[in-house]
Amino acid sequence: MAAWLLGVNTLKIQPFKLPSLGPHDARVRMKAVGICGSDVHYLKTLQCAHFVVKKPMVIGHECAGIIEEVGSEVKNLVPGDRVALEPGISCWRCDLCKEGRYNLCPEMKFFATPPVHGSLANQVVHPADLCFKLPDNVSLEEGAMCEPLSVGVHACRRANIGPETNVLVMGAGPIGLVTMLSARAFGAPRIIIVDVDDYRLSVAKDLGANEVVKVSTNLQDVAQEVVLIHQAMGTGVDVTFDCAGFNKTMSTALSATRPGGKVCLVGMGHNEMTVPLTPAAAREVDVIGVFRYKNTWPLCIEFLRSGKIDVKPLITHRFGFSQKEIEEAFETSAAGSTAIKVMFNL
Amino acid sequence: MAAWLLGVNTLKIQPFKLPSLGPHDARVRMKAVGICGSDVHYLKTLQCAHFVVKKPMVIGHECAGIIEEVGSEVKNLVPGDRVALEPGISCWRCDLCKEGRYNLCPEMKFFATPPVHGSLANQVVHPADLCFKLPDNVSLEEGAMCEPLSVGVHACRRANIGPETNVLVMGAGPIGLVTMLSARAFGAPRIIIVDVDDYRLSVAKDLGANEVVKVSTNLQDVAQEVVLIHQAMGTGVDVTFDCAGFNKTMSTALSATRPGGKVCLVGMGHNEMTVPLTPAAAREVDVIGVFRYKNTWPLCIEFLRSGKIDVKPLITHRFGFSQKEIEEAFETSAAGSTAIKVMFNL
Amino acid sequence: MAAWLLGVNTLKIQPFKLPSLGPHDARVRMKAVGICGSDVHYLKTLQCAHFVVKKPMVIGHECAGIIEEVGSEVKNLVPGDRVALEPGISCWRCDLCKEGRYNLCPEMKFFATPPVHGSLANQVVHPADLCFKLPDNVSLEEGAMCEPLSVGVHACRRANIGPETNVLVMGAGPIGLVTMLSARAFGAPRIIIVDVDDYRLSVAKDLGANEVVKVSTNLQDVAQEVVLIHQAMGTGVDVTFDCAGFNKTMSTALSATRPGGKVCLVGMGHNEMTVPLTPAAAREVDVIGVFRYKNTWPLCIEFLRSGKIDVKPLITHRFGFSQKEIEEAFETSAAGSTAIKVMFNL
Amino acid sequence: MAAWLLGVNTLKIQPFKLPSLGPHDARVRMKAVGICGSDVHYLKTLQCAHFVVKKPMVIGHECAGIIEEVGSEVKNLVPGDRVALEPGISCWRCDLCKEGRYNLCPEMKFFATPPVHGSLANQVVHPADLCFKLPDNVSLEEGAMCEPLSVGVHACRRANIGPETNVLVMGAGPIGLVTMLSARAFGAPRIIIVDVDDYRLSVAKDLGANEVVKVSTNLQDVAQEVVLIHQAMGTGVDVTFDCAGFNKTMSTALSATRPGGKVCLVGMGHNEMTVPLTPAAAREVDVIGVFRYKNTWPLCIEFLRSGKIDVKPLITHRFGFSQKEIEEAFETSAAGSTAIKVMFNL
Repeated sequence: MAAWLLGVNTLKIQPFKLPSLGPHDARVRMKAVGICGSDVHYLKTLQCAHFVVKKPMVIGHECAGIIEEVGSEVKNLVPGDRVALEPGISCWRCDLCKEGRYNLCPEMKFFATPPVHGSLANQVVHPADLCFKLPDNVSLEEGAMCEPLSVGVHACRRANIGPETNVLVMGAGPIGLVTMLSARAFGAPRIIIVDVDDYRLSVAKDLGANEVVKVSTNLQDVAQEVVLIHQAMGTGVDVTFDCAGFNKTMSTALSATRPGGKVCLVGMGHNEMTVPLTPAAAREVDVIGVFRYKNTWPLCIEFLRSGKIDVKPLITHRFGFSQKEIEEAFETSAAGSTAIKVMFNL
Repeated sequence: MAAWLLGVNTLKIQPFKLPSLGPHDARVRMKAVGICGSDVHYLKTLQCAHFVVKKPMVIGHECAGIIEEVGSEVKNLVPGDRVALEPGISCWRCDLCKEGRYNLCPEMKFFATPPVHGSLANQVVHPADLCFKLPDNVSLEEGAMCEPLSVGVHACRRANIGPETNVLVMGAGPIGLVTMLSARAFGAPRIIIVDVDDYRLSVAKDLGANEVVKVSTNLQDVAQEVVLIHQAMGTGVDVTFDCAGFNKTMSTALSATRPGGKVCLVGMGHNEMTVPLTPAAAREVDVIGVFRYKNTWPLCIEFLRSGKIDVKPLITHRFGFSQKEIEEAFETSAAGSTAIKVMFNL
Repeated sequence: MAAWLLGVNTLKIQPFKLPSLGPHDARVRMKAVGICGSDVHYLKTLQCAHFVVKKPMVIGHECAGIIEEVGSEVKNLVPGDRVALEPGISCWRCDLCKEGRYNLCPEMKFFATPPVHGSLANQVVHPADLCFKLPDNVSLEEGAMCEPLSVGVHACRRANIGPETNVLVMGAGPIGLVTMLSARAFGAPRIIIVDVDDYRLSVAKDLGANEVVKVSTNLQDVAQEVVLIHQAMGTGVDVTFDCAGFNKTMSTALSATRPGGKVCLVGMGHNEMTVPLTPAAAREVDVIGVFRYKNTWPLCIEFLRSGKIDVKPLITHRFGFSQKEIEEAFETSAAGSTAIKVMFNL
Repeated sequence: MAAWLLGVNTLKIQPFKLPSLGPHDARVRMKAVGICGSDVHYLKTLQCAHFVVKKPMVIGHECAGIIEEVGSEVKNLVPGDRVALEPGISCWRCDLCKEGRYNLCPEMKFFATPPVHGSLANQVVHPADLCFKLPDNVSLEEGAMCEPLSVGVHACRRANIGPETNVLVMGAGPIGLVTMLSARAFGAPRIIIVDVDDYRLSVAKDLGANEVVKVSTNLQDVAQEVVLIHQAMGTGVDVTFDCAGFNKTMSTALSATRPGGKVCLVGMGHNEMTVPLTPAAAREVDVIGVFRYKNTWPLCIEFLRSGKIDVKPLITHRFGFSQKEIEEAFETSAAGSTAIKVMFNL
């Protein structure tokens, strides 16, 4: 059985025929699946970025489960192993794959990115090398959280965060929070987080932001808010993560970052942006893009195992895998506000 | 004597008192000084970017000359040496200087950036380590061209151009041309250059562009012009240099560059830009800024010495150092069109 | 039919059963196969480094040919295409593959590295993404030369050679020569090459070395030979490639390279080395290792197409594919001296 | 007054004439000065590496103190500020300085590296930009420890240590310990440390090594000790720091490190080394050198301020600044064994 997206706002639990198990594959019984903003987008509009759902598709891609069977060539996993799943299967034949940037593979097959089925299902078949064994002290729910956490980890790697990088995070939503947690785990000595919402800022503070700065949505406030940010940081901003992606957040990011620093654009708010790009470029502030992640599961699992990152406070709501509950779960996630991460327990 | 900027459109040759010669300084008799776009800006408006001329200032910063005297500690130069001058003196005490990014030094003293005097003068006193000896087969005029060429060289270094980098250049003005020449010297196998002007494109073709693409100034043509650019390239665009810096050129740059590629913003057209930054970031197309240059003179001189770059065709007009000629020279440079580089011979 | 290594000094042309053609494979009619030093090693000793030939194995791995048939999923090749073959098939499931360092894959299956069969055969079946189409102006023999050339290209990439890197090459054998040609193509402004043999040095000079330095095999001459090398270079040695790999060449390499430079160890002479590693490390001279290559075929082909590298002068001997000729060919290659590259035309 | 090295084993407190205070200098009253292995070397042999003491020289270079007076141009310090001193003054005119590798400056003037006087004195005059203000919660003794700690920090930077780097440290002496502490602060998830001495290993364990491995001095034990190291690590060794620098430690380092990893040679035991360099290079294990440090004081101070590193347990002995005590202090340091860091309080 799987959760099929059949049309706008139409999600049904229906039978799902598993593909056959190849020699390098694993069959996994799903136990924890989180809802991502993109899942909600697909449910509400049948599309996300330039991807469009044209025929029924199983939804879901943040997941963990238990190995039920492995293919003949699989050596590192056995039935019973608890695993987190990396959702994208790349081609390994194109230049980008071969150069180690497989996240940019044009042939990528990714859970719940049409026309590929997702993983909100009782069972899935997946390449065994994309199933990462969880240590005893990391739960299946935490395993499912490796997916959103990977976005933060990949952003920190691309922006080269370390113990000398003072970090500004624009936006305290789920992506802003995992980016903040990742930056801390990469050693960032000081992290300031900015949002328009008091509740989100209080969550960010509880999760370890050094300081929070409340801002408006008014573009004309950028200059004075940059002053407040600089006061809160107390020193130069080395890297800013824009986890919202709006004209205002990006304008603030570009203006607040020190000469020679970086702005990493993580959020996907506006498509076209009106921002002071030229003055930033003239201070050699580079704008770094991120798309999904690569090679992040082992590091995420190590962060969870060692306690350098605790994702449990991000899981605010839990649901079972019934027709009624999946509808409630997506409504809860779509409503936002106090829901950070909505998780299914299957 | 030096060319003093006294007010809008007012340039006078007047006496200039040389500073005293320190132990690490050299006194240089200027022989070749080029006119830069920023010089014209200062003459027409008394400002450029955020710099404002508030009191009389000697203009000029692209220069070469002959050593007349050196300070007591100078070991590598003797009177009679022909040298090209790097115009910026950084503090070497701030973090950016110490990390090797001295071009971003907040204490930089730079020829003809107010309030610092420039080098369109009979003589200047300058740190000897910023005076680079020219080989016999490199002329003083070519030495002065090291300054604009450095912009292209620094951009190529920041964008990591090499024999695997297919390059697109937006804009065939002086900066576009030196960037193209630099990219070729760094090994770029294929370079496409784009402009609105047929004459500029013909110059670019003569100077070695593989193909040129004529474009409009209409933003709605971006999509179809990207198709033409891709056809002209025949393969992916790895790096795009936007040497114009307008909404349209940057939109084209961001759209035309392959996933995982880079856009380097060199030109300073619009301050605020409206561009499709988010879809580019989602393909991990990074936007790299450049500000002036650092450590470029030795490489520029080597490119000139070896013949990997020939800057002589860029010098389209020459003037002497008299009141009448400096006025004519700046008018010629300001008129643009067929003037690429206007050079004074002192 | 294929050339089977059956025992020490025993090579026989015998039938070879082709594996079946998978959906992503190509069947290639071999047309040009070169002999590598490792092939000779296997023939003389049945081993090379830690690899041992334990049962009959087809030899050869430097090759190019013509596509005869492609699998159902192959899109970029058609029968009749002339292709150069990259010989190693990596697993794409291990960490090293996924990070883009597939040349280090512990599961690598590589032509003529036991127990994997090689390509000195009438036909082979090989993954289509490892068959690189040759432009019209690049011959099949040149295509086969992409393999040894790849060693030089990979070394240059690892050592970050560019237009500012003055290069010293220790050893003017086949690997020294392809490294020199690659360094030139990456833009190295000045290349000095060192050997004990006058003939080899004259070949190197003909192929474009700026200067050559004849040295002894006596370890006590290192200091004075470093002086000669520095005189020949005229400036600091930024990168040294040790393409011999003996105590003396490596001692010279470590001593001759400037503070902050790199020594790249390409040759595999001595296993254990006695060298002044500590004083080099104390000048931050890093020692960079290389193993085979990765992602080099497209760049090699571009260098050949554009004429930046001409490998034709390296092909000194040619043989047909008969029992008598393969024996002669290996004897010629083993004899060394004037044989640089021995090539089969099938 | 200052501690003058007058001959072998001859150290006398004698008057020291301070140089005049330049506009960018500070006069500092020394409060804490540590003894380094190189100080002991100079005292016992009048030389260290290739530096030779030819005339009387004030000793000492690990130091912190209180600002007494600043030059006219100094803006960031005032009398009374507690500061740690970076001991080396580079020229800022050579290529290496300008590229940001000032630690390799050939004109470096470094405390107590002949013929430059050191800082075991009541007062010194030093460039203000090399005097780094200490936060309230960092003591002057900890400030003096920034010097040895900088060696570890610089090594970690050069080896690119982060949260994915499993680290092996060869040698649990003072340099091994600061390297271990630095690697932890850079995020290394697992650190194994190796020594021949039980006491040193117990100190290392107390200071946070995950596991320690006791080894012999017998070269023939390398293979089996590598097995023990791999067992202790439980996964691949990404980076090994050889903090001893002997044939055996380096052989172990080269053999134990995973393909694609790095060995960083920090210790300076043997000058010429006999080690299996070729097999390591053939696994692309790079050997990274380190010389002193650059730009490390701000990061060291941040590590101390935040508690990410605690250097206090390393200070095992303290002495006052009298003729009798300096003799005792150097004897204590030279005796080694239980003395890790010997500190003067002035």
